[in-house]
Amino acid sequence: MVNDILGTDVVVQIGIIVRNIEKAVEEYSKIFGVEKPEIIITDVYEKAKTQYKGNPTPARAKLAFFKNFKNVEIELIEPDDNPSTWREFLDTHGEGLHHLGFLVKGTQKIMEDFKKNGIEIAQQGYYTGGMYTYLDSFEKIKFIIELLENF
Amino acid sequence: MVNDILGTDVVVQIGIIVRNIEKAVEEYSKIFGVEKPEIIITDVYEKAKTQYKGNPTPARAKLAFFKNFKNVEIELIEPDDNPSTWREFLDTHGEGLHHLGFLVKGTQKIMEDFKKNGIEIAQQGYYTGGMYTYLDSFEKIKFIIELLENF
Repeated sequence: MVNDILGTDVVVQIGIIVRNIEKAVEEYSKIFGVEKPEIIITDVYEKAKTQYKGNPTPARAKLAFFKNFKNVEIELIEPDDNPSTWREFLDTHGEGLHHLGFLVKGTQKIMEDFKKNGIEIAQQGYYTGGMYTYLDSFEKIKFIIELLENF
Repeated sequence: MVNDILGTDVVVQIGIIVRNIEKAVEEYSKIFGVEKPEIIITDVYEKAKTQYKGNPTPARAKLAFFKNFKNVEIELIEPDDNPSTWREFLDTHGEGLHHLGFLVKGTQKIMEDFKKNGIEIAQQGYYTGGMYTYLDSFEKIKFIIELLENF
């Protein structure tokens, strides 16, 4: 059943915060016997327009995407020291699973629906071809919901 | 591509540790607009034969399974106070995403392959119709691998 709020019934991404992405990529690739993916870095503020808790932040993160499981993608994330949901998670919880990502259409409308359940935007930004929105759902359901919308 | 060690390329389950499962189930159901699943409790030692770090443990956990996403199941887990991977995770990391589960055949052989990469069994036990094995993969890849084998 397609979720009424999200408009999808598929978890597309599992996001994991790590301290040292080079080391984590190495271990992951070794354990699952897969090639090491490229490590990329999120765009600078001028392009990403990253907003964290309603304020602009220069925060960036190193990312690596593992596509070796067919039903869901695993993303490793190494935050920099600037304020972000990634850095906050690392400082509060340590390394570990950070978010579940959903591919959506109409982020604005979805956010309005989530607000009715007391869930607000934690962080929002752009990537080439789309926009991501992290919700502050952790306190209620113990994981962060990420809305991914491609244009 | 089917993973050489696991023999599967599908993540079947995302496991989340919570302090209060009744409250988390309530919030989850509200947020995703789904019916509340039954909360069950893992079997007593005599049936589950739970082994944690190589020793028997009376540990049990309350569980709730959300099947509202079509590609992966979400499991909420509230540990009791006895020694277990669930309790250890809660005490060390707090609430949050604990494991990714894979449906496998031949746990013993898979474990031997993981051992070659320095990964051992953290906890193992039985449920009606099958057996689960948590691996101590957290330090290396920042999530716990769970092998689920149904008989």
